[in-house]
Amino acid sequence: MTFDLVLVGFGNVARRFVGLLHEQRRRLSHDYDVTLRIVGIATRRHGQLFSAGGLDARQFAARVAAGGLIDTGGPAESTHSGPAKAGHYSASPAKAGHYSSSAAFIGDVADRCAAAARQRRLIVVETTTLDIRRGEPAIGHVRASLASGAHVVTANKGPAAFAYRSLALAAERAGRRFLFEGAVMDGIPVFNLVRDTLPGVRVTGFRGVVNSTTNYMLTAMEEGRSYQTALAEMQARGIAEADPSLDVDGWDAAAKTSALANVLLDANVTPQSIAREGIAPETAERARAATGAGRRLKLVVRGSRSAPPGVGLEELPADDLLASLEHQQNALILQTDLLGEFAIVQRGGDLTQTAYALLSDILAIARETTGARATRRSPMPARRGRSR
Amino acid sequence: MTFDLVLVGFGNVARRFVGLLHEQRRRLSHDYDVTLRIVGIATRRHGQLFSAGGLDARQFAARVAAGGLIDTGGPAESTHSGPAKAGHYSASPAKAGHYSSSAAFIGDVADRCAAAARQRRLIVVETTTLDIRRGEPAIGHVRASLASGAHVVTANKGPAAFAYRSLALAAERAGRRFLFEGAVMDGIPVFNLVRDTLPGVRVTGFRGVVNSTTNYMLTAMEEGRSYQTALAEMQARGIAEADPSLDVDGWDAAAKTSALANVLLDANVTPQSIAREGIAPETAERARAATGAGRRLKLVVRGSRSAPPGVGLEELPADDLLASLEHQQNALILQTDLLGEFAIVQRGGDLTQTAYALLSDILAIARETTGARATRRSPMPARRGRSR
Repeated sequence: MTFDLVLVGFGNVARRFVGLLHEQRRRLSHDYDVTLRIVGIATRRHGQLFSAGGLDARQFAARVAAGGLIDTGGPAESTHSGPAKAGHYSASPAKAGHYSSSAAFIGDVADRCAAAARQRRLIVVETTTLDIRRGEPAIGHVRASLASGAHVVTANKGPAAFAYRSLALAAERAGRRFLFEGAVMDGIPVFNLVRDTLPGVRVTGFRGVVNSTTNYMLTAMEEGRSYQTALAEMQARGIAEADPSLDVDGWDAAAKTSALANVLLDANVTPQSIAREGIAPETAERARAATGAGRRLKLVVRGSRSAPPGVGLEELPADDLLASLEHQQNALILQTDLLGEFAIVQRGGDLTQTAYALLSDILAIARETTGARATRRSPMPARRGRSR
Repeated sequence: MTFDLVLVGFGNVARRFVGLLHEQRRRLSHDYDVTLRIVGIATRRHGQLFSAGGLDARQFAARVAAGGLIDTGGPAESTHSGPAKAGHYSASPAKAGHYSSSAAFIGDVADRCAAAARQRRLIVVETTTLDIRRGEPAIGHVRASLASGAHVVTANKGPAAFAYRSLALAAERAGRRFLFEGAVMDGIPVFNLVRDTLPGVRVTGFRGVVNSTTNYMLTAMEEGRSYQTALAEMQARGIAEADPSLDVDGWDAAAKTSALANVLLDANVTPQSIAREGIAPETAERARAATGAGRRLKLVVRGSRSAPPGVGLEELPADDLLASLEHQQNALILQTDLLGEFAIVQRGGDLTQTAYALLSDILAIARETTGARATRRSPMPARRGRSR
């Protein structure tokens, strides 16, 4: 079955996603009988594009990465893999007066892909950056998608952190999916793990280290480097933002905590309503003092059904799983009724993992839409007669 | 939808499973629209029972736990929840000449539940004990189930460890499921995690500590206790068997390694073909020497696509995740193409977790059979107006 994708946001994550789709296309087709076709792209600064027959998104990604507008240069039309149709156009920012917003673009694309939407084969892939004050415009993009009959998957923490309950309700009413595996620990399964592999299990709480930048900086400060040096190292790697406050002030961790609490614990919180702590230059001394006492200072997120969620610096004993996390490692410990405590540990993260989170959400939708066909068969007898 | 279950094996795990079903019945019905009804029970020493209308398995479990035969005492018939039908009988070992084996029982029950089998609503729940030489009779039970049109779920490592490839092929041909989440780390998702939440991801290898008894004993020996004392402690808790060789000689770990390699890495190995090491009284000295050098001795299982799987004692540096596992904790590190390395850590195991593994497999089957109906809705807006 072919699914039509509309990319809203076309930054690093979306462009890596485009590459991943290309790399995985044969596996998706062979193992899952799924073809993913990008029919629309909405960017913040580089215009919007649509082709009912499918776009050559890799070429546009290369052009944007090189600093160009995605539809300048003329040959955009000729790269479309399908025949030109009524719903086939591209618009530069200069001539894109039709679309006051990406939400409007989503609505129009859904109109032009009405059959795909009706057959539940239209999926919006939302990758705009997190706005920590209100979660917009991502929340609006999710609403517009569901209202238009599209499923929506996002790597943005905002929608689940600020508006999970109302968006989940909108998705249920629309009979479409709103998924966001990439919001916490990139593509390592967290939300999909609870939903798909823990049926009947009630999550009662969680503890974790979920922000890589601060964990890296705490490790570096234990080793004697200053806050500024540690931060500069992360920025040089392109992991911390130029404006590091989302990470070091604990906002990223608070957004993840909010999403975890809302989804796993039926809470109704926002990042602003969560007790929050971050790290600062003076944290270095505290981290070294903890190490000297055989303990480790970590930025820990917490949630439970009996106490409000929070983000705070904690001195952990050396045998705590969270204390063992070095550098950019993350971990989430889930407390459950039937399975006790167990943990998921992410030992390294990169852009591919975030891009994969989107793909895993899309394949979850494909599985539901097509039934067992899009499930990789558990019986996977190798065709070769290999024996070891 | 109602699924009919046939329990083959009625030991601790099966009896805890019966209790778990009862405890979870409202949640299963409400959240998943699934009713699970036990129609048959085959035991090794206590006879076989069948009722097309459903058995009161809890009462039989209590009777067996008290040492009785499940169908002695007369009132068995009167406890059946459904009306007496042609396919309604019970047989004590004395009068159970009809069934030379549990496999024959499975075939006959499937005949009597032909409609359920045809509608893919018949599931055999296999919980016999592991035979480390050949994996029988569990493999035969799996074959009989699939041949009769029943799905089969098992907590027994034998089938996946000894015969995964042929059983997976039989399941594929029959259009039925063969699932075994409980074979490794009890109910903590391993096989279902890879199958359901990592679509498109290729597992390239694994490392882990997956035998609780030996890990507990190694920890105890580090603390200065002898091999015999450590083993006696585990036996007193009912965790190690009276004959401890399955654990201490590394057979349990080898069976799990074989299952992991066969399923996740397309290998075709058996526990006997795997390089294997265990622990012995003289291991105590080695464990203490490692600790003295700032390292820890662990019984590590390994597999990869480029080298044969194995089980062996390894001295690990203190910052290795596996080195941090205390007492009965287990962990499995998966190496993948798209998600790098990540780990699942089990922080405690008990009979409920093993019983839950069976339930999670059954719900995976229910989801496939009924489509999205048996999926807990990801949108789970709480009905209460609770806010925190």
